[in-house]
Amino acid sequence: MENTFLYLSTVTAFLIVLILSPILIPMLKQFKFGQNVRDDGPESHLKKQGTPTMGGIMMIIAIIIGSISYSGWDLKVLTLVLAVTLYGIIGFADDYIKVRFKRSLGLTAKQKLIGQFAFGLIVTLAVYFLLGKDTKMLLPFVQKEVDLSYLWIPFGVFIMMAATNAVNLTDGLDGLASSVCLVLGVFYSFYVIRSGAGELSIFSGALAGATLGFLVFNHYPAKVFMGDTGSLALGAGLGALSLMTKTALFLPFIGIIIVAETVSVMIQVASFKMTGKRVFKMAPLHHHFELSGWSEVKVCLVFALITVLACVLVYIF
Amino acid sequence: MENTFLYLSTVTAFLIVLILSPILIPMLKQFKFGQNVRDDGPESHLKKQGTPTMGGIMMIIAIIIGSISYSGWDLKVLTLVLAVTLYGIIGFADDYIKVRFKRSLGLTAKQKLIGQFAFGLIVTLAVYFLLGKDTKMLLPFVQKEVDLSYLWIPFGVFIMMAATNAVNLTDGLDGLASSVCLVLGVFYSFYVIRSGAGELSIFSGALAGATLGFLVFNHYPAKVFMGDTGSLALGAGLGALSLMTKTALFLPFIGIIIVAETVSVMIQVASFKMTGKRVFKMAPLHHHFELSGWSEVKVCLVFALITVLACVLVYIF
Repeated sequence: MENTFLYLSTVTAFLIVLILSPILIPMLKQFKFGQNVRDDGPESHLKKQGTPTMGGIMMIIAIIIGSISYSGWDLKVLTLVLAVTLYGIIGFADDYIKVRFKRSLGLTAKQKLIGQFAFGLIVTLAVYFLLGKDTKMLLPFVQKEVDLSYLWIPFGVFIMMAATNAVNLTDGLDGLASSVCLVLGVFYSFYVIRSGAGELSIFSGALAGATLGFLVFNHYPAKVFMGDTGSLALGAGLGALSLMTKTALFLPFIGIIIVAETVSVMIQVASFKMTGKRVFKMAPLHHHFELSGWSEVKVCLVFALITVLACVLVYIF
Repeated sequence: MENTFLYLSTVTAFLIVLILSPILIPMLKQFKFGQNVRDDGPESHLKKQGTPTMGGIMMIIAIIIGSISYSGWDLKVLTLVLAVTLYGIIGFADDYIKVRFKRSLGLTAKQKLIGQFAFGLIVTLAVYFLLGKDTKMLLPFVQKEVDLSYLWIPFGVFIMMAATNAVNLTDGLDGLASSVCLVLGVFYSFYVIRSGAGELSIFSGALAGATLGFLVFNHYPAKVFMGDTGSLALGAGLGALSLMTKTALFLPFIGIIIVAETVSVMIQVASFKMTGKRVFKMAPLHHHFELSGWSEVKVCLVFALITVLACVLVYIF
């Protein structure tokens, strides 16, 4: 039964992206929603100018419909869908302002942070009460739990902010963020069924289906980018899912790539500020490998495979 | 008895700094160990060019002698002294290269990070075994503990790296880092006596005495800077002390200033990278207030008082 729903929600979300794409991609392009590529990225990225962004909208719609079609009014699934939608709105506002007004600045940093914080608190509190105020977190690799007591709430907000920004930073190469999130979606689909929270597989399946559908157009050379709309929504979905399944402490392992991307930025900046030297050729990490001579496709494949490996290890142990 | 030792170690460390200063400060100056002030700081800081740095050496010597004189061969106190010494060495190497070779680059960022990581692991493992492999951490404000299980080790390393870098970032205004660390040293002196780990008060007293002695010369206008030598050593002492007393989770509260300084840098950089806009006029936080028109003395006093307030709240509850 759970497997059936997992299958259905995955396929539904996948198909919705495919159906939406011939309508949405030209629309995004026509309205001249071409992204202004960061001028501080590698030079080879300048050719990406003109590729439409905000493709994350397709994934958000697919996740919402794919989830709700089979979950009925399950509050847990609805909370996850809410997380995706709320952060998708922040990302959309940011992308929209950026593209509409032809400037590389979207929302101000303050607006973005306050939005992420407020929505993070809403999602965390919703999960907190849905789990019956259970403040435990599972530890990977051992059959143990850590009781975070009242720190669970600030920790939850931190996870939401960290996950969304981490996927956002990872989203810098064709197909990278979408393939990493696809792997994580698949991991959670199997994980929640085994852990007895099968209803959540409807959501994780939809997330996996939507990212797979998006990859059809987002793989190198990308015909569409997900934008902040997509990266914040996917990060929020995964972050909220990890809170709901009490597996937020799994993220440093299964999310090793998005963590490494984030830490690389922190190290790069801290070291430049304090010693005047850079550690990486360019941050986030994927640019470092690109400038080391790896192709976009190679970086993307290696990063996705590392994620697969990490997920398999965590799943087995 | 414990109060006597606390008193003696505090006074000893304080006096050692006073005694060393007329020898060391001119020596640091004579050898032309004038610090090359960062050219990306506020303009008003350019006049600081020529002030000798590496004054942290005086504090390290004072903490070592002040602690060991009264602790005998207490392994816990020795571990804390070891932490101060190890990180002091990294800081010294960095300062020395910077000043000796008249360049603003010291150690490479990689060398520094690897050193901090390796020493953090050594200190954490030492504390881990000295505490009998107790992996619990106390929660502030409630009489509860969190059992971190095997995450205690990576968490400990994180605390050592975070505390040292946080004090390092805070050390950007005359008297700021030293006064904040003074308050934290005093807090721990009282805290450890109440919690029944009185022997640790010998160390925290020495730390408080050394920072107080240093403030005699480091208050505005500073006659000497502590340098990375001092800031990494103080951060290491406080970080190790928090691990030894299982109070690392108190740090977000009692260390609110050094945390805020660190977070301000992270927010500033992340937002600039992602939205192209700055949140603060300048990071770390103390420069933001300075550029908002506060004097160095005012920033320093307000930050120290906030630390006092936070420590009192945590101590009472």
